[in-house]
Amino acid sequence: MNIIRYPERNDRERITGRSRTDLSELNAAVEKILDDVRENGDRAVIRYEEMFDKAALQSLVVTEKELEEALTEVSEELLDALHLAHGNIERFHRAQAMTVKKVETQPGVTCWQKSVAIEKVGLYVPGGTAPLFSTVLMLATPAVIAGCREIVLCTPPGKDGKVNPAILAAAHIAGVRKIFKIGGVQAIGAMAYGTESVPKVYKIFGPGNQYVMAAKQIVSLHDVAIDMPAGPSEVCVIADETSNPEFVAADMLSQAEHGADSQAVLITTSERMLDDVAACIDRQTEALERKEFIRKSLENSMLILVKDYDEAMELSNIYAPEHLIIATENHEELAAKVVNAGSVFLGKYACESAGDYASGTNHTLPTHGYATAYSGVNLDSYNRKITFQHITPEGIANIGRAVEIMAENERLDAHKNAMTVRIDECKNIYGEKK
Amino acid sequence: MNIIRYPERNDRERITGRSRTDLSELNAAVEKILDDVRENGDRAVIRYEEMFDKAALQSLVVTEKELEEALTEVSEELLDALHLAHGNIERFHRAQAMTVKKVETQPGVTCWQKSVAIEKVGLYVPGGTAPLFSTVLMLATPAVIAGCREIVLCTPPGKDGKVNPAILAAAHIAGVRKIFKIGGVQAIGAMAYGTESVPKVYKIFGPGNQYVMAAKQIVSLHDVAIDMPAGPSEVCVIADETSNPEFVAADMLSQAEHGADSQAVLITTSERMLDDVAACIDRQTEALERKEFIRKSLENSMLILVKDYDEAMELSNIYAPEHLIIATENHEELAAKVVNAGSVFLGKYACESAGDYASGTNHTLPTHGYATAYSGVNLDSYNRKITFQHITPEGIANIGRAVEIMAENERLDAHKNAMTVRIDECKNIYGEKK
Repeated sequence: MNIIRYPERNDRERITGRSRTDLSELNAAVEKILDDVRENGDRAVIRYEEMFDKAALQSLVVTEKELEEALTEVSEELLDALHLAHGNIERFHRAQAMTVKKVETQPGVTCWQKSVAIEKVGLYVPGGTAPLFSTVLMLATPAVIAGCREIVLCTPPGKDGKVNPAILAAAHIAGVRKIFKIGGVQAIGAMAYGTESVPKVYKIFGPGNQYVMAAKQIVSLHDVAIDMPAGPSEVCVIADETSNPEFVAADMLSQAEHGADSQAVLITTSERMLDDVAACIDRQTEALERKEFIRKSLENSMLILVKDYDEAMELSNIYAPEHLIIATENHEELAAKVVNAGSVFLGKYACESAGDYASGTNHTLPTHGYATAYSGVNLDSYNRKITFQHITPEGIANIGRAVEIMAENERLDAHKNAMTVRIDECKNIYGEKK
Repeated sequence: MNIIRYPERNDRERITGRSRTDLSELNAAVEKILDDVRENGDRAVIRYEEMFDKAALQSLVVTEKELEEALTEVSEELLDALHLAHGNIERFHRAQAMTVKKVETQPGVTCWQKSVAIEKVGLYVPGGTAPLFSTVLMLATPAVIAGCREIVLCTPPGKDGKVNPAILAAAHIAGVRKIFKIGGVQAIGAMAYGTESVPKVYKIFGPGNQYVMAAKQIVSLHDVAIDMPAGPSEVCVIADETSNPEFVAADMLSQAEHGADSQAVLITTSERMLDDVAACIDRQTEALERKEFIRKSLENSMLILVKDYDEAMELSNIYAPEHLIIATENHEELAAKVVNAGSVFLGKYACESAGDYASGTNHTLPTHGYATAYSGVNLDSYNRKITFQHITPEGIANIGRAVEIMAENERLDAHKNAMTVRIDECKNIYGEKK
């Protein structure tokens, strides 16, 4: 861990900077797979499943029978937990629904926004050593609330050609029915272009390794929208002398276990807290399974001592962390100063794990400093705000001349004419009716 | 114009398809300029301004004096129109503001979203034959309402080194103060990376030619967010026998004058309307200045006869037009069936020009079928929705065990431990307090 005491003002950007992850080196390999999937559909996908996931598949579809079987294979305890988490995620995301508000910008000119679900969305859930069933809940629950007509989920099978039962259980609880045994670049290609089995979607969501990220970037240039750019996961904890160093250390370690490139940052106003957290991290690490990952990840991690709360918040806003835990007594006051962060956890009990799984907020969040410009996944991510307007003859009388003048000055006389023909007609109508 | 009568169901996708615009051929040239700007800052920008805009600049900044001068050069009439348009745009976008709604997902677990402005945004306004001052209002007004701290506007100067006065007047009215005389790829580079004069921003908005679009795509891969992918502009008009063919023709022509690659599509349930619109288009075109553009654009355009309103709406939703004018008597009923569109104009008086300039809705909209997944620019485009959560010991009692079980099943034991240490503490507290 890097310990930094009282950093210089002009050193802040450097300290909080992330290394640029350039995925373009992967592009040639990724594009080859994407092109193959685009041209050869299921046949190509099945071939890559054999190559990369070592799974010999006859069909890419998870059948109703497989889904039912999976539900019997998951413990009652886990099913209960999934239901509780799903309920909370549903409550929080349902409250994000927008109500239509008609605005009369001028008498006779009425404008409004309507939130309309994206018709077809694709969710990608990585496989690997840990089955990320929580990501299924996070991506599928708002899609179902938004009312997306077609929700496609791709996740890699194991060597036995089966999908992890907890992932299937989570999909079942969230209400997803179209599940495909496809991982990696071939999954992104299948959803972006469509195959015989997999419907083409309009937007792709979900995390993945560098190849998956590169594939998402490539297909997003022409074919399909994506949720957000991705990078290694990170947490920033702001602590003062009242914080609990055991909790802070546990939070930092829960971030560090994600992978060697994860980053955990402590910003504290208390020198004692810094020392205590460092000691707790050392002690707690010993008991954890993923020690090796954690030790590597801690090499990128920082314990930063600052002079006051203002500096702590300034530094955090420059860093723009994916997760921000404000574990100080005055967390309410500091929360008002958050400008750049993905999701913020306030007080000593709100740990990142709570939001990762079950409190109700989404865990698909902007990393790598993208929180300066992107939101995490939320109900809006599955909707478009379509604008509508209705104009009466009175409205034409109120804005018509301004439109003509502006169009004339932009030298777009057909634009002007479209208004002129209406003004001409309305002169009669409006003259009569007024 | 292409006239299509009663298209086959399985021919719809082909009819409404757009040609893929591949900007990657431009990438090498664009990247060279971007790299130069990144490395050499203002010096490179000034060099490209000389090369591409034929302007010899000492400074890239529009001064206060230049701004004041511009205001005296713009007609009273245009200033009044700009004020009226700005007022309407402001009213409509201000009404989009979100109020914070705290949700208790479980007793003791409180989650909320807060809308926080992106700190630094860059607006690009193209130059060229027509000064697009309306785009200044459309991009700057919501940025100011959102509360973006730094709003940078780049627009190319003329050969005389001056920016069009109407653009400066619009910027003044919208409240933008940092204006730079920079166009094209060098403008996108300057805002993405920052130079001595131009601040680096987090998100870039605005239209542009193919080079600008390619530059926006490239910088969006690593450095900065962009508003949306771009493509040629388009309108779809749905008309029945009650529509006014003069109005419909005028609307289609106002689209066609944008450029040779613009597309105007009529979908009508009435054979007579199709013939009448075709005749009106021919007649009206003669009187328009941009006849040459329009004739080329009309080659891509279509008049489609369908059997009923349902088919009209289905076809429109497959096309996913940037602008959709529903000029039928039952426009309210059809509006409810819109799934894919950027902005919708209802009834005979709501022409696209109204929304392009002054009704209050935004004119920066998803083209090229991107309306299937993207919204037009709106207040949200300048904000992030940051999630917050606060959890009490009672909250830990309610969700703690579920978090532990889920973390355990995802084999993330540090995630589990972050909750366990809190459960252990809360057992005492909560036991006592309940």
